[in-house]
Amino acid sequence: MTLRIAEIFGPTVQGEGILIGEPTVFVRAGGCDYRCAWCDSLHAVDSAYRDTWVPMTPEAIMAEVRRLSGGQPLTVSISGGNPAIQDFAPVIAIGQEEGYRFALETQGSIAQDWFAGLDTLVLSPKPPSSGHRTDWLKFDRCLAAAERAGQTVMKIVIFDKTDLAYARAAHDRHPQLPLFLQPGNPEVDPQSPVDLDQTTARLRWLIDETVGKGWLTPRILPQLHVLIWGNQRGV
Amino acid sequence: MTLRIAEIFGPTVQGEGILIGEPTVFVRAGGCDYRCAWCDSLHAVDSAYRDTWVPMTPEAIMAEVRRLSGGQPLTVSISGGNPAIQDFAPVIAIGQEEGYRFALETQGSIAQDWFAGLDTLVLSPKPPSSGHRTDWLKFDRCLAAAERAGQTVMKIVIFDKTDLAYARAAHDRHPQLPLFLQPGNPEVDPQSPVDLDQTTARLRWLIDETVGKGWLTPRILPQLHVLIWGNQRGV
Repeated sequence: MTLRIAEIFGPTVQGEGILIGEPTVFVRAGGCDYRCAWCDSLHAVDSAYRDTWVPMTPEAIMAEVRRLSGGQPLTVSISGGNPAIQDFAPVIAIGQEEGYRFALETQGSIAQDWFAGLDTLVLSPKPPSSGHRTDWLKFDRCLAAAERAGQTVMKIVIFDKTDLAYARAAHDRHPQLPLFLQPGNPEVDPQSPVDLDQTTARLRWLIDETVGKGWLTPRILPQLHVLIWGNQRGV
Repeated sequence: MTLRIAEIFGPTVQGEGILIGEPTVFVRAGGCDYRCAWCDSLHAVDSAYRDTWVPMTPEAIMAEVRRLSGGQPLTVSISGGNPAIQDFAPVIAIGQEEGYRFALETQGSIAQDWFAGLDTLVLSPKPPSSGHRTDWLKFDRCLAAAERAGQTVMKIVIFDKTDLAYARAAHDRHPQLPLFLQPGNPEVDPQSPVDLDQTTARLRWLIDETVGKGWLTPRILPQLHVLIWGNQRGV
């Protein structure tokens, strides 16, 4: 059994959400059931890149993670694309045996029984600016599958006020889920430098529109890796 | 009974450490037993500013927090100066009754029984670049006082490799404490703009010197408020 892997890199710091700043090795799965308008990982999504995805056994994936971390257990973030398309249960089983912790990032469109074994499940439903509509029934199935996971949180990317209204409705639907918002990044070309002033201005805008207007529930965070490395890949 | 308060402001987002991104009202106490070489809050430390510190009763402090948050319970961060010099127990008691949560930031030089009632205690022992030496006996007393607090974490500011060695030793001494490192900020003049490129370069350096060299324990975070607002006060 093999999995399609777009890239494995690290250790670096997690740039987003509840584990922000945490030393992490990233395992990025190839393939996605979504095609968000502003996707920042098209190389793991668009089937035009399919030739660059490597079929790897769970043991080969963990061997690479082990090599990168020098054998020190750390947090492994499984992302994509949508990694829930494939079966990561064996990877998680091998890794946890050795003390590695696993976080999974998925939009919540496909539920898997193995979510129950995760240390952290990050559900990031996609707001209207993505061009997708959320199927909340499927999202709820993901939540149910993760009932016994270490922690489950919700993370939403915000480009505009319509996205913000969506985030509020998502929170009303799942008030028990810790909520993290981050400004969307329209500059996703890995060849172009990121404008730091504009990146921080977007964060300021998001804080003004939430905390500044009395919505005190979500935690507001940047994409740290964009601030640090721009859109460079592999960091 | 009154407390010396340098400023109360917010709601804004917590810029540092374990609660980074969390909507927060800050209560900054006046007065400090330390005088760090790179202090970014001299207006709450140096007795030259003593005239600007307002004596407030616990009820008056919570009335101001309530006014700022529109009566919505949120996280209140008590900082300074060293807020452990004074008795914040009554403030915490009044606030928690109404659903407010309390975090305290202190260097760990003065222990108080009321640490036990905190939701979050952030102990930030000062590295050699501060010009101070840590009295670990006093630090341990702070830890003991906070045994029943919600969570206790350690946060250390890093300016150079000597500070990094100190952080490693601090972690070896208290391996059970979640550890957060942040790059020091040498640009603390509120009148001068912060250089974003240099600020992110310092974060990159710290990641290179920790994660990049196989030290995978600490979480590495920026001072978000410096990235967003520079050294402006009241945000």
